[in-house]
Amino acid sequence: MKLSNFFLPILKENPSEAKIKSHQLMLRSGMIRQSASGIYSWLPLGLRVLKNIENVVRDEQNNAGANELLMPTIQSADIWKESGRYDDYGKEMLRITDRHDRDLLYGPTNEELITQIFRDNVKSYKSLPLLLYHIQWKFRDEIRPRFGVMRCREFLMKDTYSFDLDKSSAENSYKKMFLSYLKTFEKFDLKAIPMKAETGPIGGDLSHEFIILAETGESEVFLDKNLLEIETKYINYTKEKIDKIVNKYSSFYAATDEKHDVIEFEKKVEKKNRLNTRGIEIGHIFYFGDKYSKSMKAFVNSKDGSNINPQMGSYGIGVSRLPAAIIEAKYNGEYMKWPNSVTPFKVAILNLGKNGDEADQKSEDIYQILKNSNLDPILDDTSENPSSKFKNFDLIGIPYQIIIGSKLKKDEYEFKELGEDKKIMSKEEIINKLKKIYAIDK
Amino acid sequence: MKLSNFFLPILKENPSEAKIKSHQLMLRSGMIRQSASGIYSWLPLGLRVLKNIENVVRDEQNNAGANELLMPTIQSADIWKESGRYDDYGKEMLRITDRHDRDLLYGPTNEELITQIFRDNVKSYKSLPLLLYHIQWKFRDEIRPRFGVMRCREFLMKDTYSFDLDKSSAENSYKKMFLSYLKTFEKFDLKAIPMKAETGPIGGDLSHEFIILAETGESEVFLDKNLLEIETKYINYTKEKIDKIVNKYSSFYAATDEKHDVIEFEKKVEKKNRLNTRGIEIGHIFYFGDKYSKSMKAFVNSKDGSNINPQMGSYGIGVSRLPAAIIEAKYNGEYMKWPNSVTPFKVAILNLGKNGDEADQKSEDIYQILKNSNLDPILDDTSENPSSKFKNFDLIGIPYQIIIGSKLKKDEYEFKELGEDKKIMSKEEIINKLKKIYAIDK
Repeated sequence: MKLSNFFLPILKENPSEAKIKSHQLMLRSGMIRQSASGIYSWLPLGLRVLKNIENVVRDEQNNAGANELLMPTIQSADIWKESGRYDDYGKEMLRITDRHDRDLLYGPTNEELITQIFRDNVKSYKSLPLLLYHIQWKFRDEIRPRFGVMRCREFLMKDTYSFDLDKSSAENSYKKMFLSYLKTFEKFDLKAIPMKAETGPIGGDLSHEFIILAETGESEVFLDKNLLEIETKYINYTKEKIDKIVNKYSSFYAATDEKHDVIEFEKKVEKKNRLNTRGIEIGHIFYFGDKYSKSMKAFVNSKDGSNINPQMGSYGIGVSRLPAAIIEAKYNGEYMKWPNSVTPFKVAILNLGKNGDEADQKSEDIYQILKNSNLDPILDDTSENPSSKFKNFDLIGIPYQIIIGSKLKKDEYEFKELGEDKKIMSKEEIINKLKKIYAIDK
Repeated sequence: MKLSNFFLPILKENPSEAKIKSHQLMLRSGMIRQSASGIYSWLPLGLRVLKNIENVVRDEQNNAGANELLMPTIQSADIWKESGRYDDYGKEMLRITDRHDRDLLYGPTNEELITQIFRDNVKSYKSLPLLLYHIQWKFRDEIRPRFGVMRCREFLMKDTYSFDLDKSSAENSYKKMFLSYLKTFEKFDLKAIPMKAETGPIGGDLSHEFIILAETGESEVFLDKNLLEIETKYINYTKEKIDKIVNKYSSFYAATDEKHDVIEFEKKVEKKNRLNTRGIEIGHIFYFGDKYSKSMKAFVNSKDGSNINPQMGSYGIGVSRLPAAIIEAKYNGEYMKWPNSVTPFKVAILNLGKNGDEADQKSEDIYQILKNSNLDPILDDTSENPSSKFKNFDLIGIPYQIIIGSKLKKDEYEFKELGEDKKIMSKEEIINKLKKIYAIDK
């Protein structure tokens, strides 16, 4: 992509309505624009980040054996009346009446709809365990939307639903999702800490929030520093491995202020390992047994011919919240550096030459090579001055830059990883380095 | 993917509510389920088709130089009051009131919202021409939804908007989209014929519908058979080439019954070239000048410092309608064969062995090889009998099958393209053939 063809309205100043740094950066770098209170449009730069996040989330759900489908945004109120939640849900639910005076609603979550799909299509115990998920826009009519996409009304969520024959099998599904969440967030280079949580309007008796640490986070958290050292990257989805990692996580103290117990914290955690900071919720998982399958009469035939209401759980990741959460964790106020899995472009080429000099051709050449190597470059081919090009790219956050001025020799380029020193490299060295970084073989 | 892990509820019989063959096939093969009147869930098989279609549409928009963004589904009524369409749009618009009694609506189209984004972010003539598009769910409260996803209420649409400084530049944008639509539909192996159309509620004075020919189509069409011979695959987006192809299309007669003129048809088209059949609308493009930019006060500074309202157009493709349209065009009642660009899996492996015999290992082997070669296979590893496996795959519509029974020699496999005869081939021959078909290098 060439910047001159890319719709990227960058703002020079922090907009006054943005109170936190992710909201500021997303507006300034032209990632999002508000179109109504708590409702945002994702401009091209923001959409690239959002799509990359969505794909990482999707890949790991697929790795865990979940099946992707897509439920609609608009639901019939009838199924919510069946489950008993239509009256409970309150004013956060966006209620709609259609031209035939039927009650509809914009789905704030999908337990009812997925239970309906299960009820109509699954008949036998042989189909269980079953994990189904979708990635879809949802709406919650927040009374006071704020902080940009962090607390907005229309938001993109990945929600998975598990169906199992009995409680012990349901626990396995729960733990599998537990691991998949840790692996997902690790791919964003985030430390996500699972913490026991209230079940709220979803119901049930087991729940964890996944919280990433960021000083600007919405809630206070207390945890054992040992939790920061655990890695899940190489752990496979076998029952034994899953049990082990869940036990490991559960053995260390971690709690939000809501559930914090000072006495236990001090008893269980050595002083040097006590960490008290703030965090942002980016995932939430629930086990709620037959709450929905029973009320909505969803059942399968068991081996002995009896009807069994499946045990269910639900598992959410706030996809459209993640760009903001990553910024809160990674933006140091001077420059933003996106994780490699998320970056909107893999590499930026900054042409600092004057219009018409040899830097133009040099930029164009390496741009074409990178493009053909699937290294998805963005070339700043505008006539802005060098200092504002650098400033813009500090906001845009591409982790690697190739800087092309008029002073270097023919096959010399400045290569820079954000936050590191510049290096002089040849074209070939740069391409090989980037291929290695992004694990591109060809 | 192994069929035993894939959520695919196949129906044995045609559901009585389905009146047309695409609706029947999509229900029977487990692609979609209705969740409320005119509102559908896309099950895993259907979602794969839908995503592939979406990606083909996206690629060609990018090729044409359009920038992808994503506008929300819910819009403020305020901008529709500015343009004057809020009262005009009638009962098809789903109107919503939020908890603060503000008027919202579920977007049926996005001229107002994109004009708002343009107005707030584009200031200079230097940014034009500009093409912006998104692929997003929309809602039109059809009085009588029917024919499955062909005429439903919540639907996925690709809509592009063009902004130009003057009429002649706007015509170039219009023609560029004209070509991009022909190229897009050609990738689905569909013959789409552009036909002059009414502008309806979008407004403006130039409009074409893109109609594919299918005997079960909703409207009657009359055209010159020469139109079926024109190819656009190798035509680039240069002004000269674009003008030439648009002129070529415009030189032949084509009209829906609404605009049909018998006298002109008979005068202009030789008898042997007259074609009278039916068609399905899958795209619609509009040029409407400054209708929205003027009423919503969107303008740019021109070279001489004056303010100019840009000339606009909008360009829609019914993404969620396309699976049904492709089925209407391709399903012969016996078997469905998806175009290669759309097929939910690239190849099907039918294990016809009895549980535990050598066919299991043979199937597993080739499955792993295909998977590692990015040939995205689905392996039928269920214990259904061979005849129902064949029947199911006639519905599922994967264009290529590898059939593994117990009778063949060690490195012999039956390979079948749907509608063609079976051939005995080696593993290597099959892999190479498929790589060639799908243009996979490695």
